[in-house]
Amino acid sequence: MKYLHTMVRVTDLDKSLDFYCNKLGLKELRRKDVPQGRFTLVFLAAPGDEDAQVELTHNWDPGEYDEGRNFGHLAYAVDDIYATCQQLMEGGVTINRPPRDGYMAFVRSPDNISIELLQKGDALPAAEPWASMPNEGHW
Amino acid sequence: MKYLHTMVRVTDLDKSLDFYCNKLGLKELRRKDVPQGRFTLVFLAAPGDEDAQVELTHNWDPGEYDEGRNFGHLAYAVDDIYATCQQLMEGGVTINRPPRDGYMAFVRSPDNISIELLQKGDALPAAEPWASMPNEGHW
Repeated sequence: MKYLHTMVRVTDLDKSLDFYCNKLGLKELRRKDVPQGRFTLVFLAAPGDEDAQVELTHNWDPGEYDEGRNFGHLAYAVDDIYATCQQLMEGGVTINRPPRDGYMAFVRSPDNISIELLQKGDALPAAEPWASMPNEGHW
Repeated sequence: MKYLHTMVRVTDLDKSLDFYCNKLGLKELRRKDVPQGRFTLVFLAAPGDEDAQVELTHNWDPGEYDEGRNFGHLAYAVDDIYATCQQLMEGGVTINRPPRDGYMAFVRSPDNISIELLQKGDALPAAEPWASMPNEGHW
């Protein structure tokens, strides 16, 4: 038995790829357009970690994707949590839970999928602007 | 950057471990009770694939975990999709989307997390009772 992917739905594929790839740093592995079903699947993974994927499902006629409570989040380890959050913030992404502790942050995808970022290894030393940045919203 | 886990919430930890471990075949890697936060975290993975984990979050005072539409499913490859579905069915799990094609099935966790099972490699030859088993519910 082997983990393949977690599937999340996306309303706007371009906006989502901008978030997951350009801002978060995942890369697109493959894409499948299914015109007869009017949907597109895009498989993403962290570079060098292609076995654990995220599948984006884009229905060409999407409904509203409401957020349930049974699903929690996707989690990724990152080399430098401050650098990742900086890059996300510069891309206009709200850091809902800033890495005040140098260790853990939360952001959300355009469709409100909660994403946890964890510093690889030990926490980084506390640093501004993160150390005094308040939480924003929920995640 | 490295995938760590997908977190899902569980209402009843025993019932969920029975589902994810005894019926689905994941194994428990570690557990963390956090009395001051009144929650327990349990990390699971497919045997031999410990890097890609599922984190169960059990709040000791859970609310109702409703099912949103932004999250789709968790997916696992299995060695024999008929054997896995048989084992799940014998454990009282509804096979929402039976593997009529010898390739793909869907079930749901006790908290309505949708789980996709995919046959490793090529589809198995069509076989009863699966070939003529109708869908049940949604997933």
